Order: sequence, then C-alpha cells, then structure tokens
Amino acid sequence: MTQAPYELYYWPTIQGRGEFVRLALEDAGAPYRDVARKHGPRSGMAAMTKLMGGDAPGLEPFAPPFLKVGELVIAQTANILLYLAPRLGLVPDDEASRLAAHQLQLTVADLVGEVHDTHHPISGSLYYEDQKPEAARRAAAFTGERLPRFLAYFERVLARGGGQGLVGGAHTYVDLSVFQVLAGLDYAFPRAMARVEAGIPGLRALGKRVAARPRVASYLASERRLPFNEEGIFRHYPELDG
Amino acid sequence: MTQAPYELYYWPTIQGRGEFVRLALEDAGAPYRDVARKHGPRSGMAAMTKLMGGDAPGLEPFAPPFLKVGELVIAQTANILLYLAPRLGLVPDDEASRLAAHQLQLTVADLVGEVHDTHHPISGSLYYEDQKPEAARRAAAFTGERLPRFLAYFERVLARGGGQGLVGGAHTYVDLSVFQVLAGLDYAFPRAMARVEAGIPGLRALGKRVAARPRVASYLASERRLPFNEEGIFRHYPELDG
Repeated sequence: MTQAPYELYYWPTIQGRGEFVRLALEDAGAPYRDVARKHGPRSGMAAMTKLMGGDAPGLEPFAPPFLKVGELVIAQTANILLYLAPRLGLVPDDEASRLAAHQLQLTVADLVGEVHDTHHPISGSLYYEDQKPEAARRAAAFTGERLPRFLAYFERVLARGGGQGLVGGAHTYVDLSVFQVLAGLDYAFPRAMARVEAGIPGLRALGKRVAARPRVASYLASERRLPFNEEGIFRHYPELDG
Repeated sequence: MTQAPYELYYWPTIQGRGEFVRLALEDAGAPYRDVARKHGPRSGMAAMTKLMGGDAPGLEPFAPPFLKVGELVIAQTANILLYLAPRLGLVPDDEASRLAAHQLQLTVADLVGEVHDTHHPISGSLYYEDQKPEAARRAAAFTGERLPRFLAYFERVLARGGGQGLVGGAHTYVDLSVFQVLAGLDYAFPRAMARVEAGIPGLRALGKRVAARPRVASYLASERRLPFNEEGIFRHYPELDG
C-alpha cells in the first residue's frame, strides 16, 4: 500500500483553518490523508496531539493545522500553503507573484483571526456563552467596520489585477482561500454580507468560478466537505449579525 | 546621491510591527530608509498613505509595515522578513530551515496580535479608555494562559535545537524577533513576566546574546530605536498586568 505524500493534521469536526489547506489539495487533485478524520476522531486526535507534544522529530507545531510530508512537519496555515502551492501548480513561478500571493494569504489569515474573535473576544478557553456581551460589542465593530474594509480591499486588488484572479491573471491558492472566506462570512453574517453585497461584484464572480471548478465542485458535494457549524471559526449566531 | 535599496514604511512614532523589520536590517548592517521618520512625521505619513491608497504600482498593502525595493512593494511583517532574510544572511539556505523560521515568525505574529488585543479587545478604532473592562478580562486570560503557553513553546523549541538559536544552531531573524517580544513583554507585563521567569532560562540567555550583538547594541543605544510607549503594541497599563 502506497502512502499518500501529504498528511494533514487538523481538528476532525470543523472546517476551520484546515479548510484552506484542504481546498488547495482538493483543487489540485493531490492525494492526501486527513489524518484525524481518517483514523476516526478519537485515535486521529491522539495522532495529532502526539505530534504536537514534541514527541516527533522536527519542529513542534504551536497549533493545528500542520502538514506532514515525509519527515518534514510544517505548521501555520499560510506557511503550509507557501510550501504546497508551487508543488500543486497553484502559484506562478516568479518571486513577485509568490510574495503577492503570500501577502494576500496572510491578510486572509488576519481576517479569519478577527472572525474567530467575534465569538471569542476574551479567551479561546472560555465558551462563547461566557463572553457574550463582549462578543456582541466586538462583532458589531467587525461587521460595521472591519468586514467591509477587508472585502473592499480584496475587491480593489482583484479589479486592479484584471478581475480574473487575485494574483494577476493566474488561478492561485489565494482565490480558493477567498472563496472559502466568502462562504464562511455568508454562513456566519448573512445580514452584514447583504449590506456589502453591492460593493463586491468581482469577488462574487470569482467565488462562483472557484465553486464551479470541477474538482472543487466535486469536493464541495462530497462527505469530505464538513458543514459549517458552531464549533468552527465561522459561526452563525444571529445576535452577532446585527 | 545613491538611494538606499530598502525603504521601510511604518508609523513613525512606535516600534510596533515595523520593529521586527528594523531589527533585521540593523543587525545585518543593511542600508535602509525609515521613510515616515526620515521625512518627518507629517510628509512621511503622506508618503505612506499614498502607497496604501493604491496610487502606486504593484500590490496595495492592507496595512503597514511595508517595504519598497525598487518597484516591488511587500507587506505583512512575516512576508517582508521571508523576503529579506536570505538577502541579509539571516536564515540558512535549506528549505526546511526557511519553513521552520517562517513558521516560528508567524507564531510570533500571532503572539503580537494577542498582545495588541489585550488593550484593544473590541476594536482598534476605539481608544483603550473605551474598552477597559473588556481589556481587563482579556489581559487576565492572556497573562494567565497565553503568555506562559507561547513562551514555554519557544523555550522548548530553543532547547530542542541546542539552545543557541531558534532555528538550529544558526543565528536567524527569528532570534531577533523573539528578543523583541521579550523586550516588549518585559515593558508591558513585568509582573506576569516575573511569574514565568524561572521557566525561560534559554530564552533569557538568547535575549542577552542578541542584545550584545555589536550592530544590535549600537542600534538599541541610538535615536533610531524608539522607546516603548502607550501608542504602540506593547503598552504598560499596570491594571492589565494582574
């Protein structure tokens, strides 16, 4: 039995940050094992925490997701994509394009962190229910200011590059990630998204093109695509979508 | 008059995220212009916001810092260091070391983001004074849980690599960044740092070695090193250092 070259370690019940890696692997048709899910949640989690505890060779990850490729363990979502994208044909060859793609991916990561903090503004160790007043205030600032600002930024970048992709004319992993961000925001903040809708025609067209890519469409229709839920990063709490 | 090859754009009155770039350039003895400071705050800020408004060619940055090198504009602190480090001799040549360094730098970035949110847990557009109760709660979670967890992680990584540097035996930009994090945490949270002190002997020794590097020592003693203050990311509010 041959082993898949890529082993993804991530929480087995949520899309979360792991989904940005899954989308790149799926779009490229790359064989991979989603370790914590393939093992079943229990032993999969054990395999993941073993690598996190510093028992394995190589650099210990601070947090999931991480990717194991042979003896190499790579953590931090954007760093995993930086490694994978040239191998999967998801970024142009030139340095300027790669830096641009990574810069945009890190801005996606900042946005995702802010989405997380709308429901966990005090601590990731507390339940949402233990930080609801603070979450309401932070979410109002996010949907009122930050969400429109991030999306207007990506819309401008897309328009300046000609509208086909965020990194010039090429299809890249950043397009997949921005598709995922739109899907997550639509799920979590439908009312806030309705307010910005008129300002993001380019992003909407891009999102549709990504969803229609054959391997992406097939993935989204499969059981491998977990549904959004209230354990993930993009959560739908109507009271936070003012 | 020859132009410095590197032009750094960042807020002129704080260390902030720009300081991680400054330390790499200073340690390497690389000529650079700190644009917003060299112009004087007012016209320097105008130069910075012009590049941010999308008036310049190339990819628009979402936020400072960014680095201009010829026609290339690179944003996101960790991305700037990813570009600079091989050119400044601040990372080994092999891919595994570069991925490890970047992974650690992104974890530094996560820590820095959490430090920022101790005083701005609701919104960066509001004053600290407008979010003090939330800040007190978030800072307690940060100093009680997250700060010890991040530092214990870096201490383990350092110990496993032999103690000389965070990326194996080589001196890298990550060592400079972790020095800066320790300096900032000492300024902002002296009481919380006293509680973790016994657990970070390796990091403390590393910090001393970095501070004693001739070009770093000379930089820290110069006027180019801005003092920490309560406009930056590392702020000393005694009420947040429980």
